[in-house]
Amino acid sequence: MTDTPATPVPAHEPPYYVAVFTTVRSDDQDGYRETDARMEELVKEIPGYLGMDHAQTPGGLGITVGYFRDGDALARWRSDAEHRAAQRRGREQWYRSYTLHVAKVERSHGFTRE
Amino acid sequence: MTDTPATPVPAHEPPYYVAVFTTVRSDDQDGYRETDARMEELVKEIPGYLGMDHAQTPGGLGITVGYFRDGDALARWRSDAEHRAAQRRGREQWYRSYTLHVAKVERSHGFTRE
Repeated sequence: MTDTPATPVPAHEPPYYVAVFTTVRSDDQDGYRETDARMEELVKEIPGYLGMDHAQTPGGLGITVGYFRDGDALARWRSDAEHRAAQRRGREQWYRSYTLHVAKVERSHGFTRE
Repeated sequence: MTDTPATPVPAHEPPYYVAVFTTVRSDDQDGYRETDARMEELVKEIPGYLGMDHAQTPGGLGITVGYFRDGDALARWRSDAEHRAAQRRGREQWYRSYTLHVAKVERSHGFTRE
């Protein structure tokens, strides 16, 4: 994911969905960057995709949060063939461990300094 | 938040809650570390607190995800007086912007390489 400019996805009107993907990387990151860029391209084509935030502590945890308008948008992304192939490669190569939490947003708000 | 050891909070049995807090820091981080350590101490005392993951891209986004068993646990953390004071100081000093999304987890899973 691109980390600049650092503008978080804004709070939307609930309900909407978040997919929280927390990762510990392996030592083998060969091909990761290209696949990640391709996934970013692909997910943008999903109707109801609202955006994605990403943070990566060097040598530590990575957290990616995807925002989707509804369960249909999420289901479509989840079943995308290229995405599924990337997930398999992630398990085999790029990630030592990960967790995924899919959740329905009940409230949200944003703050920006004046 | 402590970033080592990099072990993500495991997937729990749904339903439970996530609070996704995404931040852009200001240039003034004076006192942040001490307050952050104190908040980490405090939140652990909340019954129903399940854990917290944190990732920070240097110079970019920070994402903190807190996990709570139910709405009562979240409400208790939300109304904690020291936490509220820290939030005010965050808006006045440490954060240029942030978003908070509170969501009920419907499904989750974890993966660990054999």
